[in-house]
Amino acid sequence: MADRFAFAKELAEAAGLLALDFFQRRDALAVETKRHAQDLVSEADRSVETLIRERIAKAFPKDGILGEEFGLEPGSSGLTWVIDPIDGTSPFLNGMPNWCVSIGVSLGGEPVIGVIAAPCHRELYAAMRGGGATLNGAPIRVTDTLDLRSGVVGLGSNDRVPPSAVAGMIGNILEIGGGFIRNGSGALMLAYVAAGRLVGYAEPSMNAWDCMAGHCLILEAGGKVLPFPGDALTTPARILAATPGSFDELDRLSAVSVPLR
Amino acid sequence: MADRFAFAKELAEAAGLLALDFFQRRDALAVETKRHAQDLVSEADRSVETLIRERIAKAFPKDGILGEEFGLEPGSSGLTWVIDPIDGTSPFLNGMPNWCVSIGVSLGGEPVIGVIAAPCHRELYAAMRGGGATLNGAPIRVTDTLDLRSGVVGLGSNDRVPPSAVAGMIGNILEIGGGFIRNGSGALMLAYVAAGRLVGYAEPSMNAWDCMAGHCLILEAGGKVLPFPGDALTTPARILAATPGSFDELDRLSAVSVPLR
Repeated sequence: MADRFAFAKELAEAAGLLALDFFQRRDALAVETKRHAQDLVSEADRSVETLIRERIAKAFPKDGILGEEFGLEPGSSGLTWVIDPIDGTSPFLNGMPNWCVSIGVSLGGEPVIGVIAAPCHRELYAAMRGGGATLNGAPIRVTDTLDLRSGVVGLGSNDRVPPSAVAGMIGNILEIGGGFIRNGSGALMLAYVAAGRLVGYAEPSMNAWDCMAGHCLILEAGGKVLPFPGDALTTPARILAATPGSFDELDRLSAVSVPLR
Repeated sequence: MADRFAFAKELAEAAGLLALDFFQRRDALAVETKRHAQDLVSEADRSVETLIRERIAKAFPKDGILGEEFGLEPGSSGLTWVIDPIDGTSPFLNGMPNWCVSIGVSLGGEPVIGVIAAPCHRELYAAMRGGGATLNGAPIRVTDTLDLRSGVVGLGSNDRVPPSAVAGMIGNILEIGGGFIRNGSGALMLAYVAAGRLVGYAEPSMNAWDCMAGHCLILEAGGKVLPFPGDALTTPARILAATPGSFDELDRLSAVSVPLR
C-alpha cells in the first residue's frame, strides 16, 4: 500500500500539470455538453483521465479503475482506483481556479488512499489510512475550534437534486447563523474540511469519484464521514462530512429528499 | 485621473502583499467578531486599511476616503476612494484563497477607477472609465457566448438578508437550469464577471466598498450594473451585474425583499 501511496502522489502531480496546461490554453479546448448545458466535458477531462488510467494499468495491472469519464474497469486485486481527472469542470472551463485532480483507492468500498492536487493553488493533499493526512507534506487536522455557527461549510448540488431541496438545505444553514461557500469543486471542498478550513461539507447526491479521496483525507484528519454505500461505487449517494462535533447537526440541516432516477 | 489610476494599481499591489503576509501567518492573528459570529475582523483588515488610507492621504490629500473598517473621511476634490482592505475576511481567516483587496474611486457616486488585487491568485484587475478593463495588463471582456443556462453566476448574501430570501434566489437560478458559485468574496466574483468567467453577480444587500471597484471593471468590460444609489455611499444596497444579454433575467431571478434596518 505504501508503494501505491507514493505512486498516487506522483500521479496526481503529473495529472495536475497536464490539466494546468489545458487550463492555460482553455479557449482552444473542444467542449461538449453531456446531459444538459451545465454538464460539460472537454478533451482536458478525457486526456487527463487517460493519462491516469494508463499509468495505473502499467504500475498495478491487477487493480480496478473507476473514473468519471470512462467508467469502471474491474480488477482482481480487491483494490479499485476511484478517480476524477478534473473535479470542478465548470470552474475549469470558465477560467476559475477552484478545480482539482482527485485520486482515491477503495478496498471493498472503504477509502484507503486519498490524494487531491489543486494545481492553481499549488496544493497537494495526501492521506493513507493509518498514516495521517498532509497538505504539501505538512500534517493537517479538521478544526477543533470552529462549529456551524462560527465557521463555514461547503455545499454542493447538481441537477439530480430538486432546486427546492438545495434551497432548503441552504436556508437551514443560514437560519442557524451559519455561513456557506460553494466554490464549484466538491472534492476540493472536502479537502478543505480535512485542512480545517471548512467545518463540514454536504451534497445530496454525489458520485464516488468526487468523494473517495476526500473521505480518506477527512478520516485521517480526524473528521467524520457518512460512508459511501455499496461496493460497486457506481451509484450516486448522499455525501456528508464534518468535524465530529458538528456532524450530527449538519446531518439534520442538510437532509433532503432526492428522487431516484 | 491617470495619475490616480497608476497610483491605485501600485497601492493595490502593495496592500495585497501586506495582506498576503498576514494570510501566511494567520494563525497568530488577533480576530474579533463584529455584529455576530460570522462577522469577523482581524488586525489584518485594519492594518491593510491603514496602509491604504495613509498612502492616499499623502498622495491626494483633498480626496475623500470611505473604507470598511474606519468609515468615511470626507474630502473636497469631489473624488472619494472607496476601499475594502480584505474582501472575503471569512475565507481569509479560514485559510481559503478567495479574498481580495478592492480599491475604487467614486465621482459623485459613479465609479471612475476600479482595481482589485487577488494575491493568492496572482491577479490584478484594473479599469479606469473610458480606458477599458485589464487583468494583469491584458484586456478583459464580459462573456458574449454564455448565458444564465450555459454559464455560471456568482451569488452573495449576509445576515441582513432573510435566509428564505437567499434560498429563494438560489432556487430561482437552479429552476431555470442555471449554475452558481459563492466563493466568499463578492468583489472577486464581480471581477470574474468582468473577466467573462461568470455571466453575472447578484447580492441583495451589499456595501459600496464591496462593489465600487467591481462596478468600474464590469462597465469597462462591456457589462451592465445596477448603479449604487446615493452620493454618500454609506447605506447598503442591492447589487446586480451581468452581461447585457442576461441582466434583465438575472434581475427578475434575484429580486428579493430585504427588510430595512
